[in-house]
Amino acid sequence: MKPFDTLALRYCDGALLLLDQRKLPFKEEWVHVTSPTQMVELIQGLAVRGAPLIGAAAAASLADFALKGASDKDIRQAAQLLKEARPTAVNLGWAIDRLLESEDFSEEANWIIEMEIEMSEQMARIGAENIFRGESILTHCNTGGLATPGIGTALGVIRKAHEQGKQIHVFVDETRPLVQGGRLTTWELKRLGVPHTLICDNMAAALMREGKIQRVLTGADRIALNGDFANKIGTYSTAVNAYYHGIPFHAVAPLSTVDPACPSGRAIPIEERGAEEVRAQWAEEGTPCFNPAFDVTPVELVSSLIFDSGEIDREKLKKGHLKSHLERSARIMQ
Amino acid sequence: MKPFDTLALRYCDGALLLLDQRKLPFKEEWVHVTSPTQMVELIQGLAVRGAPLIGAAAAASLADFALKGASDKDIRQAAQLLKEARPTAVNLGWAIDRLLESEDFSEEANWIIEMEIEMSEQMARIGAENIFRGESILTHCNTGGLATPGIGTALGVIRKAHEQGKQIHVFVDETRPLVQGGRLTTWELKRLGVPHTLICDNMAAALMREGKIQRVLTGADRIALNGDFANKIGTYSTAVNAYYHGIPFHAVAPLSTVDPACPSGRAIPIEERGAEEVRAQWAEEGTPCFNPAFDVTPVELVSSLIFDSGEIDREKLKKGHLKSHLERSARIMQ
Repeated sequence: MKPFDTLALRYCDGALLLLDQRKLPFKEEWVHVTSPTQMVELIQGLAVRGAPLIGAAAAASLADFALKGASDKDIRQAAQLLKEARPTAVNLGWAIDRLLESEDFSEEANWIIEMEIEMSEQMARIGAENIFRGESILTHCNTGGLATPGIGTALGVIRKAHEQGKQIHVFVDETRPLVQGGRLTTWELKRLGVPHTLICDNMAAALMREGKIQRVLTGADRIALNGDFANKIGTYSTAVNAYYHGIPFHAVAPLSTVDPACPSGRAIPIEERGAEEVRAQWAEEGTPCFNPAFDVTPVELVSSLIFDSGEIDREKLKKGHLKSHLERSARIMQ
Repeated sequence: MKPFDTLALRYCDGALLLLDQRKLPFKEEWVHVTSPTQMVELIQGLAVRGAPLIGAAAAASLADFALKGASDKDIRQAAQLLKEARPTAVNLGWAIDRLLESEDFSEEANWIIEMEIEMSEQMARIGAENIFRGESILTHCNTGGLATPGIGTALGVIRKAHEQGKQIHVFVDETRPLVQGGRLTTWELKRLGVPHTLICDNMAAALMREGKIQRVLTGADRIALNGDFANKIGTYSTAVNAYYHGIPFHAVAPLSTVDPACPSGRAIPIEERGAEEVRAQWAEEGTPCFNPAFDVTPVELVSSLIFDSGEIDREKLKKGHLKSHLERSARIMQ
C-alpha cells in the first residue's frame, strides 16, 4: 500500500495510524492499528468516525491485513466484521465490497482514499457556489478532515467558501450526545482560521428566528433513492427549523453515499447506542434513555443535495432525478 | 414568618433553607441563607431556579432580612438587588414589589408561597383535563417542585395526569446547557414514580416524526399580552417542531407570569450567560460561544396557555383575550 497522510488516518513505514478522535480537542494521540479486529473496536468506540473516513479506514485495515499474509478465510471473516461495525453509514459496506471485488486490496484502498480526497474537492467547489458573501452558516456534527480523508463534505464547502474570501461565519451545533461539533468542528475551524461560534443544539431555531443564520449545511451518512437521507441525530430537527424559517438546507456527500437498495428513508437502519452517552455526567445511573445515533430527513425539507458529481435540487429529487443521475455517473465511472 | 416546608425551600426555627439544585441529582445539600446578598448569589448561580420559586425565595429572603432588624435603607437596597438578580422571569420583580407594597413582609411572603402552592394545584387540575389516557408527553427544562413552591407548572400537570391513572409516559429533554431536564426533572419523576425517558434536545423532532410524542408541555418565564412567551432556551425549537408535526403545545404558568408591560415577545429581555456553560468539559478554552438562557415562542405556535385562572387557546389569544382575562382576574383578586 502506498503511504498516505490525511488529517486523521496515515499509512507510513508499513504502519496504519489513526488519530484517536475521542481525545480531541485536548490531546492529539495516534493509535497504531495492527488488526481489523482492533479497527472494528476503534470504529464502534468512535475513535474514528465520519461516514467516508470509516469506509477508508476499514479498507486500509483490510488491505494491511492482507499484506501481512492473512489467509483468505481470515480476510473474509475480517471483511464481514468491518462491514457490520456500524449499521447506518453505507460507506463501510461500499468500501469493503470494492476491496473484495478488486484484484489488489492495496491498490484499491489507495484508490478509495485518493478518490475521497478528490471528491471532497469537487463537493467543496460545487457547494461553495451557493454561498453568498457574508453569510452565517449553521452546521451540525463534524464533516471535515476528521470525517473524510479529504477536506470534508459540508465542512469542506465551508472551508472552500472561506478560502474564496467570502467572509462567512459558522455557527456550530455542539451535537449531543457525543459533541462532535463542540469537540471536533471547533477544533478544525480554529486551525483553519474560520470565524465560528459554538451553540447548543437547541439554540439554532432562536438564531434562525432572529435572522442570524442564512444557510444550513450538513453531511449525510446514507441517502435513499428518493432523496431522503440519514445523518447524525439532530439533523432532522435542524431541517424542520430551517424549512419553517425559509432557510436553505443542503446535505453534502460523495455520490457513494447513495444506497440504491433504499427506495426511501424508511429503509435506512438507524443505530441505537448506549444510555450512558445521554446520561453523560449529569443524570443518575439507571435513568432510562433513548439514544438513536442518526435520524432521517425527508427530501421535502432539503433545498438540494450536493454531490461530487453535481448538485440536485428538491424539485429534481422529487421527480426521481437521483436515480438517473446515479446510473449516468456509474456509466461514466466504468 | 410562618414555617414552610416545600421541596426546595424551607423556613423553620427562624432559618431560611434552600436545596442547592446545582448538586442534584447526586447530592441533596441544603444551604442556610442568611442575607439577601447571599440569596442574590444563589439565584444568579442557579442554586435556586424556576420562575415561581425564585420569586418566592427572594420574597422569603427579604422578609427574613426585615425580621432580623434591617434598616429601611438596607431593605430598599436589598429589594433592588433581588429584583435585578435575573432579568427574564417576571416573578422576581412581582414578588418583591408585592412585599414593598404590603404592611407586613412576613405575612406577604407566606401569602406568596401559599398562593403559589394553590396555583400549582389549579394549573395541574385544568391542564390535566387536556391529557388523554396513554399519551406520551414531551417536556423541556424543569417545571416541577424544584421550580415552584407547589407541585409545579408543566410538571404539575404531568404529575396530576399520572395520579389520575392516565398511564402517561414522559420524554424529558435534557435541556442544555445546564441540563435541568437531565438532572432535575428525571430526579423528580423518579421519586414520583412517573415512567420517563431522557433524550437529548435534538432527538425530540425525530420522535415526533415517528408518532411517539402526542403533546408538549413547558413552563413560561414571562408572558407578553399577545400570548408570546419567554421560556428556557430550546423551547422555541420544540414549539416549531410540534407545530410542524401537528402536535399540541401548551405553556403552563401562574397568571402572575403575564407582564402587562410587554405587548409582545419582542419586549422581553433575554438573559445571556457565560460561554463556559456551553463549552462544558468538551470544547477548548477560548472557543467563542453564544449562550442565551431563554428564547421567545410566538403565540402562533401555541395551542393554549394554561393558567391557574383558566386555559386560553390560540384563537382567543390572537383575539387579545389574555388582556381582558388579566383585567377580570385582577378585579376578582381585589
